[in-house]
Amino acid sequence: MRVDFSGDRVLAIVAHPDDAELLCAGTLARAKADGAAIAVCVLCKGEKGQPARPIRNLAAVRRKEMAAAVRLLGAKLFRCEFGDGELADIPIQRKKVIEVVRQFRPTLVLAHSPDDYHADHRAAAALAEAASWFCSSAGHKTRSPVLETQPALWWMDCVNMSGFEPGFFADISDYVELKREMLRCHASQLQRFVANDMSSLEEMMLRQCRVRGAQAGVAAAEAFRSHLAWKRTRAW
Amino acid sequence: MRVDFSGDRVLAIVAHPDDAELLCAGTLARAKADGAAIAVCVLCKGEKGQPARPIRNLAAVRRKEMAAAVRLLGAKLFRCEFGDGELADIPIQRKKVIEVVRQFRPTLVLAHSPDDYHADHRAAAALAEAASWFCSSAGHKTRSPVLETQPALWWMDCVNMSGFEPGFFADISDYVELKREMLRCHASQLQRFVANDMSSLEEMMLRQCRVRGAQAGVAAAEAFRSHLAWKRTRAW
Amino acid sequence: MRVDFSGDRVLAIVAHPDDAELLCAGTLARAKADGAAIAVCVLCKGEKGQPARPIRNLAAVRRKEMAAAVRLLGAKLFRCEFGDGELADIPIQRKKVIEVVRQFRPTLVLAHSPDDYHADHRAAAALAEAASWFCSSAGHKTRSPVLETQPALWWMDCVNMSGFEPGFFADISDYVELKREMLRCHASQLQRFVANDMSSLEEMMLRQCRVRGAQAGVAAAEAFRSHLAWKRTRAW
Amino acid sequence: MRVDFSGDRVLAIVAHPDDAELLCAGTLARAKADGAAIAVCVLCKGEKGQPARPIRNLAAVRRKEMAAAVRLLGAKLFRCEFGDGELADIPIQRKKVIEVVRQFRPTLVLAHSPDDYHADHRAAAALAEAASWFCSSAGHKTRSPVLETQPALWWMDCVNMSGFEPGFFADISDYVELKREMLRCHASQLQRFVANDMSSLEEMMLRQCRVRGAQAGVAAAEAFRSHLAWKRTRAW
Amino acid sequence: MRVDFSGDRVLAIVAHPDDAELLCAGTLARAKADGAAIAVCVLCKGEKGQPARPIRNLAAVRRKEMAAAVRLLGAKLFRCEFGDGELADIPIQRKKVIEVVRQFRPTLVLAHSPDDYHADHRAAAALAEAASWFCSSAGHKTRSPVLETQPALWWMDCVNMSGFEPGFFADISDYVELKREMLRCHASQLQRFVANDMSSLEEMMLRQCRVRGAQAGVAAAEAFRSHLAWKRTRAW
Amino acid sequence: MRVDFSGDRVLAIVAHPDDAELLCAGTLARAKADGAAIAVCVLCKGEKGQPARPIRNLAAVRRKEMAAAVRLLGAKLFRCEFGDGELADIPIQRKKVIEVVRQFRPTLVLAHSPDDYHADHRAAAALAEAASWFCSSAGHKTRSPVLETQPALWWMDCVNMSGFEPGFFADISDYVELKREMLRCHASQLQRFVANDMSSLEEMMLRQCRVRGAQAGVAAAEAFRSHLAWKRTRAW
Repeated sequence: MRVDFSGDRVLAIVAHPDDAELLCAGTLARAKADGAAIAVCVLCKGEKGQPARPIRNLAAVRRKEMAAAVRLLGAKLFRCEFGDGELADIPIQRKKVIEVVRQFRPTLVLAHSPDDYHADHRAAAALAEAASWFCSSAGHKTRSPVLETQPALWWMDCVNMSGFEPGFFADISDYVELKREMLRCHASQLQRFVANDMSSLEEMMLRQCRVRGAQAGVAAAEAFRSHLAWKRTRAW
Repeated sequence: MRVDFSGDRVLAIVAHPDDAELLCAGTLARAKADGAAIAVCVLCKGEKGQPARPIRNLAAVRRKEMAAAVRLLGAKLFRCEFGDGELADIPIQRKKVIEVVRQFRPTLVLAHSPDDYHADHRAAAALAEAASWFCSSAGHKTRSPVLETQPALWWMDCVNMSGFEPGFFADISDYVELKREMLRCHASQLQRFVANDMSSLEEMMLRQCRVRGAQAGVAAAEAFRSHLAWKRTRAW
Repeated sequence: MRVDFSGDRVLAIVAHPDDAELLCAGTLARAKADGAAIAVCVLCKGEKGQPARPIRNLAAVRRKEMAAAVRLLGAKLFRCEFGDGELADIPIQRKKVIEVVRQFRPTLVLAHSPDDYHADHRAAAALAEAASWFCSSAGHKTRSPVLETQPALWWMDCVNMSGFEPGFFADISDYVELKREMLRCHASQLQRFVANDMSSLEEMMLRQCRVRGAQAGVAAAEAFRSHLAWKRTRAW
Repeated sequence: MRVDFSGDRVLAIVAHPDDAELLCAGTLARAKADGAAIAVCVLCKGEKGQPARPIRNLAAVRRKEMAAAVRLLGAKLFRCEFGDGELADIPIQRKKVIEVVRQFRPTLVLAHSPDDYHADHRAAAALAEAASWFCSSAGHKTRSPVLETQPALWWMDCVNMSGFEPGFFADISDYVELKREMLRCHASQLQRFVANDMSSLEEMMLRQCRVRGAQAGVAAAEAFRSHLAWKRTRAW
Repeated sequence: MRVDFSGDRVLAIVAHPDDAELLCAGTLARAKADGAAIAVCVLCKGEKGQPARPIRNLAAVRRKEMAAAVRLLGAKLFRCEFGDGELADIPIQRKKVIEVVRQFRPTLVLAHSPDDYHADHRAAAALAEAASWFCSSAGHKTRSPVLETQPALWWMDCVNMSGFEPGFFADISDYVELKREMLRCHASQLQRFVANDMSSLEEMMLRQCRVRGAQAGVAAAEAFRSHLAWKRTRAW
Repeated sequence: MRVDFSGDRVLAIVAHPDDAELLCAGTLARAKADGAAIAVCVLCKGEKGQPARPIRNLAAVRRKEMAAAVRLLGAKLFRCEFGDGELADIPIQRKKVIEVVRQFRPTLVLAHSPDDYHADHRAAAALAEAASWFCSSAGHKTRSPVLETQPALWWMDCVNMSGFEPGFFADISDYVELKREMLRCHASQLQRFVANDMSSLEEMMLRQCRVRGAQAGVAAAEAFRSHLAWKRTRAW
């Protein structure tokens, strides 16, 4: 079996500038190869993700890093520029994300799992869910026109696979190298992980897509689960 | 998104002669349209499914009914001829199903949910799971050669959708009429439902695929869940 | 077995003017027939539920629609007049709902499922849960007197039965026609569904209560689950 | 809310002679008070439940004990006389239990939880479920006539409430004393618990129905969960 | 098996002044006996927990009560002085709790279950989780220095054990008397329970630790579950 | 926190000769270092685990391999010599395992997860659970004396971590090398994996304990879950 994304428009809504690299960039690349339009919406500036030796104007640095990474992927980039640690499904943020959804007009949204380890990721899940619902409600006005129908919604895996039960897996065997290159664009974060004496971010990403692959009979995979709510799951 | 079954070999292993009609015939038809090879393995004779006015030699009658239905579908038919109410994952039954799996060499097996309402369906789930695992173990000998790898395994929906949490949905909007025609081949069972004053089998089937469709944004769907065990889930 | 609501006071707290029709009106009607006092508290004005051809002063239109529907049911109506898409368990809203609970003094509250598809429904779930807890806390002052004990709390089904595991079912076979008539009071919404080319709201409601009925051996049913928390579940 | 059992026929199918006392005797008593017919089917002889000083002919002793206890309850008693530790959903046992179900013709069956701590209890769950399904299948012949429809099925709580998520609670505040008296009929088992230096069986029973009561706002309760499968859940 | 807390620093973050007594004081005492440093952070003033005859300046009274109780335990006490019923994971509250975490530098945080019965407890769960995550993020500044790593996080049992599935149990058989003495310090609350005609708070606490003990083969226990998220679970 | 196994007697009951290496050998080694007595009970001969070039008398070869591996671990070895693919919780097998449990007298049993990917592993789970329950029932006679109390029971992780939700993790950072050496004793199986062109068994084992370590803040870990049933969970 193979999922074909041709004709789709896939929008990943992630909390921080390097989250797509870890959790869904391979699937976005595959969708693009199938002929889909793809985009990444980064909600936070990433300005609090400081390595041991603080970087001045980190937000600007990370803006460049994410632009470079998303360019490698060939996706459109949306930035919401919310503050790190300040994400919440409150009116002002919800409205901004609705506008992004209406600009890109996705058929599929990829969002953080509501059970993720990071409070910002969980808030991003709530925002992505709400925005991709209200995008098609005429009563919620933003600059762009209302969508006719809500996009499908997939929850993404959690970091280190802790506490996430996959519903299905996308084969990304051909895109591991791309994910690695994208991750290397985030120099500020690679330093940070080294400084904290954790396994490197890159190693963690590689291990995760290989374990998900081993669980699903391929060299590398990303895991997802459909949001099983009315109008948010699309048969295939 | 659309799942493409081209190149696949899909084997539905069901307990009784009319179970495929209700739970997976649409998906089999879609797979065939994609170019997949398809087959149905019926485990029981159906000889205890008597309508109010008992039918003589019911097993033979049902053999004809299922042959007619599966012919409409264009699938290969395997019959294990176990007794109704006697299914169990015991060596003699497991061996017979292993041989069926080895003859058809599926890449994907569709099986009843382990939580189904019917004891035979749950036993069929256990048999299908075990047979589609041991089919690739050289130590378990049957007439046909050992498979190189285990097929993927999807659990099918339950009747009336009670107690089944879908992982994903197959769009079968184009195959509802086929399902209806297949079901009509099972004249012995249609009588039975009328006699018992239940909603008719046909109505139940139509309602189920329409509700599953409504839950997944299409006219009609069948629901499944991947068996999330090592070597039984295949990334797509 | 039959649940008897005599002596009860049942309050449904719903997000939008037509939500009770879909998810709990049959159970309210049954409770009333048993001798219970019943009420519906509608949290939002419904002012953003615009059909294709926008209706001027939609909030006022929907106020009339819901009044008519609740009159058919014979229930007391409370309106909180919050904005659509603006529901949240924040102090000002929580306080208003506490006051409603204290005015009606329910023994049982029916609330949206915390896992519902709609952000407003999930917020309504949180508000209903909190308000029906704090209603009996002397420290939380509103105009009406504090209740002696918290009412029981049941979570209602989700639309199209997506993602809701029932704990039990109420037989509403005698009240399907009433639900249909109540729904027809919401003319503004019936238009909306047609315009969006979805299955009609009425058809969806009928299908849902019939499937729930089929799952529970009756002609029509509504599904619920007890809130399994201290002081929120009542033995029967 | 109050569940009314009038018109019902309630059959508890338990593994050992004293299991009903612990898990469902209060609910049976309540059903009887409502006008229901009640019965207990004990599957095993209890011959292996030896206290420290072995009792000769323990099976006969326990036969008397259970007869006395069930007499207090005012229920009909069925005994299957299977060996302790030998319960399994195999044809010979299933057939015997089907016959019991057909003799009593229940509208509701109470069975051990499939996740119970004791292998015999789990086997009893499987037997009760299968027998109360096949009782209405004309193809499965036993001495008594086939039932027209399957009874509803409730899973009972587990001992010490470990690992059981209640779906609902029956108020048994008026029947705690009866449960205590019934338990005292099982003198052979009361000794056994003392000998093993565990908290006494009586204390354990009392504590369990009081905690379940505290969780559900009454003095004492028994907890259950509906078997959420087609034709096994009955709306009320 | 025995868990050894020597070298640990255990911080319980609870909503109200008497919550630790009920849910985790025994485990704190055991950790202290092992050589761990222990602390309790009480988020709310408890000023709305009025008994029938209101107590003037209840917040001050409860401040003394909790100081006395925590003194018996031999723990350090932190008070956040938020209002009862006003807890929320909002920036101002989150920041205050981060500062507490940074002052105590725990290796293990005990927090209310996210599924607790009380809205304040659920908000406390969210606050505890977020604060014990962001405590080690350099970008989130408070007075005290950033922690090098996040502490492990355990969710505590719910009151009356409703709706909580334990992951493991701490043996507190030696500390039941201490819990009772601590609880008796909360005179304002003991009155309140009597007034409401509920089972007394003390009885409830004793019953809960004894049932948890019975479920885990000891005289008394407290139940917990690890937060299964990245960096929040620590192998032992 | 650290779990101390001193005074314990830990018995791992596994299906095949190399299963302990993958799932629990590190924890056994840690227990032994704490002063616990440890043992491994291998249920099957492993005679069907043939590599591409079949090995004559494979059962004898694997007997030597497992003896060598268990010698490295310093554990006592029990062999039940059941046939591969023939495990079932049937009287003859259950009795044999009860006798093993009674000989070793464990305080803790480690068993395969009931949801494991392999039918033999699931049958081993059922056997281990039943045997470690009935070991203390005087009515179930085997050669060795009855145990006074049932041991605690932990379910082990699944291969490749598919479908297993950990309850807690044991830190085995010091025992990875031992696990590797033990695995290398199983030369017949290492060949087999290479032949099937799967990732090597060793690589799979290393990856699994490192990912479990990463999820739990240590270099390497093994994951478990308590069997949450009466008398099978022990507080620590």
